[in-house]
Amino acid sequence: MPSQTPKSARRSRGPRDDRGVTLNAITTAARGSFAENGWAGTTMRAVAKSAGVDSALVHYYFDSKEQLLDASTMPPAEWVVALQEIPSVPLRERGEAILRRVIWAWTRPEIRDVLRSILLTAAHEQRTRQKLRGFFAATLLPAVAGQFDEPERNLRASLVAAQVSGVIMIRWIWEIEPLASVTDEQLVALIAPTLQRYLSGRLTERS
Amino acid sequence: MPSQTPKSARRSRGPRDDRGVTLNAITTAARGSFAENGWAGTTMRAVAKSAGVDSALVHYYFDSKEQLLDASTMPPAEWVVALQEIPSVPLRERGEAILRRVIWAWTRPEIRDVLRSILLTAAHEQRTRQKLRGFFAATLLPAVAGQFDEPERNLRASLVAAQVSGVIMIRWIWEIEPLASVTDEQLVALIAPTLQRYLSGRLTERS
Repeated sequence: MPSQTPKSARRSRGPRDDRGVTLNAITTAARGSFAENGWAGTTMRAVAKSAGVDSALVHYYFDSKEQLLDASTMPPAEWVVALQEIPSVPLRERGEAILRRVIWAWTRPEIRDVLRSILLTAAHEQRTRQKLRGFFAATLLPAVAGQFDEPERNLRASLVAAQVSGVIMIRWIWEIEPLASVTDEQLVALIAPTLQRYLSGRLTERS
Repeated sequence: MPSQTPKSARRSRGPRDDRGVTLNAITTAARGSFAENGWAGTTMRAVAKSAGVDSALVHYYFDSKEQLLDASTMPPAEWVVALQEIPSVPLRERGEAILRRVIWAWTRPEIRDVLRSILLTAAHEQRTRQKLRGFFAATLLPAVAGQFDEPERNLRASLVAAQVSGVIMIRWIWEIEPLASVTDEQLVALIAPTLQRYLSGRLTERS
């Protein structure tokens, strides 16, 4: 939110005018807390403190911790748009296209932080896990070659999810070398063939 | 803890069996807390409460939270032994051998819970991340075909780690369908060829 107004002046105008800035501070703090401390370890009060706002303000915007979680794990619109382009990429290039979008997302803190938070929170919390499931289905399923029947398309989408998630964990979350520091081009050359096999190739050597 | 008695002396008191049971209760509780609430969200007091022991007893066994973390994220001996067998498996079967050991580990709560805790804690906590790095290197590196030079062997080991971790996250941690419920045999047929490519196959289509 572009604003030159000093903080003190903005504060005096009350919640509605300040909505974007305040909401952003709250959801950013909540995202960090859900990812680091889990669902049980996150309180509305601690989120308020970390966002530098009064606890009443968090309750003003969010009726419940569930609502706060939903708002802080909303995939950024830019990321959703980037993934929606994938089905229009030629089939044989989609493995690479998916990976390049993930690499791009990790250069953008406002996308990366939300994705990181979704992945980490989903390990503990059923509601975010459900969101992650829906999100994988909605974004990866349309990338799979259309010639397969529905069960196989679903299977292929979850295989892509398995390889992409593993790369995210190793390269950016756990930072395991050398995969954490190969160039983006090397990463694409190494991983895209696997994604491509899952999207459109022969799945098993026995079938 | 205000006491002049050396810990080693205090530790030697009391029946051995009690010690094992109590220690196990404490490390189990700690493991759950580190994984669910992260490093910052875990206190010795909360661990004691969850283990059903007096808080003084946790301090009796562990001087610090670091020590408690180390003890609760120690890979089970059975798991280390299972992985040590891999280099003696014929090279072309090692991808499958690794995956079958992971599948087996997830049928054993005492192994699975530690591995799960290491993976989740490593997302937040530098000390566990370091342990995870060492562990991947020690167990996956010897599985890679010996004909490659060291940088390539390291790269291949981290690629195996990326695929194995992704499968663990999708199948057992986030439980994304259908990969969460395919049979073990299907999982092996789908994933082992990828692992095998990373272990001994051609890495990129361009090289």
